[in-house]
Amino acid sequence: MHDLIVIGGGPAGMVATVYAMRQRLNVLLVTETLGGKTEIRCEFPGIGETSVIRGRQLVDRFKNEIAYLRIAHRLERVSRVERRDSKQGHPSFTVRTAGGEELESRALIVASGCSFKPPQMPGAGRYLSKGIGYSALSYAHLFLDRTAVVIGSGRRAVRSALQLANSARQVYLLAPAAGAPPDGTPLTEALGDLENVTVLENCTIDGFNGDEYAREVVVGLPGGRQPQHVQADGFFVESEAEPCSEMVAGLVERDARGYILVDSRNLTSQAGIAAAGDVTTVGHEQVLVAVGEGAKAALSMLEHLLERR
Amino acid sequence: MHDLIVIGGGPAGMVATVYAMRQRLNVLLVTETLGGKTEIRCEFPGIGETSVIRGRQLVDRFKNEIAYLRIAHRLERVSRVERRDSKQGHPSFTVRTAGGEELESRALIVASGCSFKPPQMPGAGRYLSKGIGYSALSYAHLFLDRTAVVIGSGRRAVRSALQLANSARQVYLLAPAAGAPPDGTPLTEALGDLENVTVLENCTIDGFNGDEYAREVVVGLPGGRQPQHVQADGFFVESEAEPCSEMVAGLVERDARGYILVDSRNLTSQAGIAAAGDVTTVGHEQVLVAVGEGAKAALSMLEHLLERR
Repeated sequence: MHDLIVIGGGPAGMVATVYAMRQRLNVLLVTETLGGKTEIRCEFPGIGETSVIRGRQLVDRFKNEIAYLRIAHRLERVSRVERRDSKQGHPSFTVRTAGGEELESRALIVASGCSFKPPQMPGAGRYLSKGIGYSALSYAHLFLDRTAVVIGSGRRAVRSALQLANSARQVYLLAPAAGAPPDGTPLTEALGDLENVTVLENCTIDGFNGDEYAREVVVGLPGGRQPQHVQADGFFVESEAEPCSEMVAGLVERDARGYILVDSRNLTSQAGIAAAGDVTTVGHEQVLVAVGEGAKAALSMLEHLLERR
Repeated sequence: MHDLIVIGGGPAGMVATVYAMRQRLNVLLVTETLGGKTEIRCEFPGIGETSVIRGRQLVDRFKNEIAYLRIAHRLERVSRVERRDSKQGHPSFTVRTAGGEELESRALIVASGCSFKPPQMPGAGRYLSKGIGYSALSYAHLFLDRTAVVIGSGRRAVRSALQLANSARQVYLLAPAAGAPPDGTPLTEALGDLENVTVLENCTIDGFNGDEYAREVVVGLPGGRQPQHVQADGFFVESEAEPCSEMVAGLVERDARGYILVDSRNLTSQAGIAAAGDVTTVGHEQVLVAVGEGAKAALSMLEHLLERR
């Protein structure tokens, strides 16, 4: 029986694991990979990647610490979590892995993040992380007097376009045909009447051109119009994310999109289960936020375990 | 009119300020000092201080960035915040400083931390940060097979004693006469029946002895008993903290002790005001938690401002 199992090895899960180890809990991190989305590194012409992501060094230190301690992590996917009630009234949890293992724990932290389904984008492959990136927030201030393209139709895309418009000379929001307006608000309305934002709705992404970096996107337009070539200094793919929370469905409260509801101390609706990072309703997708959430979740579960001793 | 005023220059406030600057908000940090409680450095015999506080380097970088940008901060105490309603329905805020200035802002982040009233402790002065420290959590794992003393009677003291007891050979909890039991639970009960914790209730702290570091505390006992000399490797003063939230009393919801209630995105009950760090109900008093909370508060206020543009 473990004291604590952490599901997911992104920044939130790694920090939670290290905090719990420090507090001498018998903790196990179960994750397919270590590093999470911090492994995706994006470069844009003239912008070095290291100057951008705050907290990268910090996260790398946590990662090294965990990679070194093999006993504290297991590289596997979690398929299902079940609650086991005991006569004493303190439930424990069974974590089933895709490989068929059953692990037992007194407390859990779900930090399994979210996944993205990017739209069909022929020719994008060779430019991924070379001009094509995601999560505009970390880069927005570097696009001062530059041109940026956002690809997406949901609230992530609208938020990114707004953040970029604060700095960039020109922002194009390319909304694929399949996209639905966020919260029923037409895209153009959500964006207000910003002069430096151009919205192309119901378009297709037909191709990319460039050199070392992507420099141009070819946009298919509805109604048999000529495709449009849009040049830019950076292309941000901001598809709607899908939280990886299926393994705790029915066990903790989730919102309509599947994000786990947490309070300000990262507790879920189920005593003994905390959640942290991009799988929660907190959002923001920032390394430093995930680090803080992971630390909070670990400390909240430490308190939970100490109180039940 | 500023976009954002941040009150308080500890880790939460500094990170919030830098995030807001990056997003090109017109932000002003108003604080008496830069650094907050991270300026208090504690050493214990055989334990270097740099190995302990995670995130110190990160916070130092934020501090340097703000200190360099004099335009972005003002070294003053905030005495009062008032809401100004406008016809458009978006309130703004007037921040009054102790020096009599009035500053206007569209949004606010309260990150003013908390203060401590340590008990009377004759002779403690020369050992502060040399054997006498606070916030045992960061040090608990280093007290493996050592002896630690916790001074305090409230829930902070109980929590610290529990955390230390996880590692330490022996923990003494010295509860001063003035202290009240936390939540009405007798101290001994809150601590369970841990074999390695000794509780001395209704005592006085009569003095400290040591060399370079504090090594011994002299404890006055009730009922005319002989004072007890307790030797230890570290002494943690865990008085109850008092949140510095008076300047927003009546404006945002606070709990009975004055901590500001925040949701998981650091929003308070007042639209346009976020709060972060040790002034909130989140607790924990960890640098990395404060960093994450500061980042979240800034991003939540950025969204608030963008939506109202």
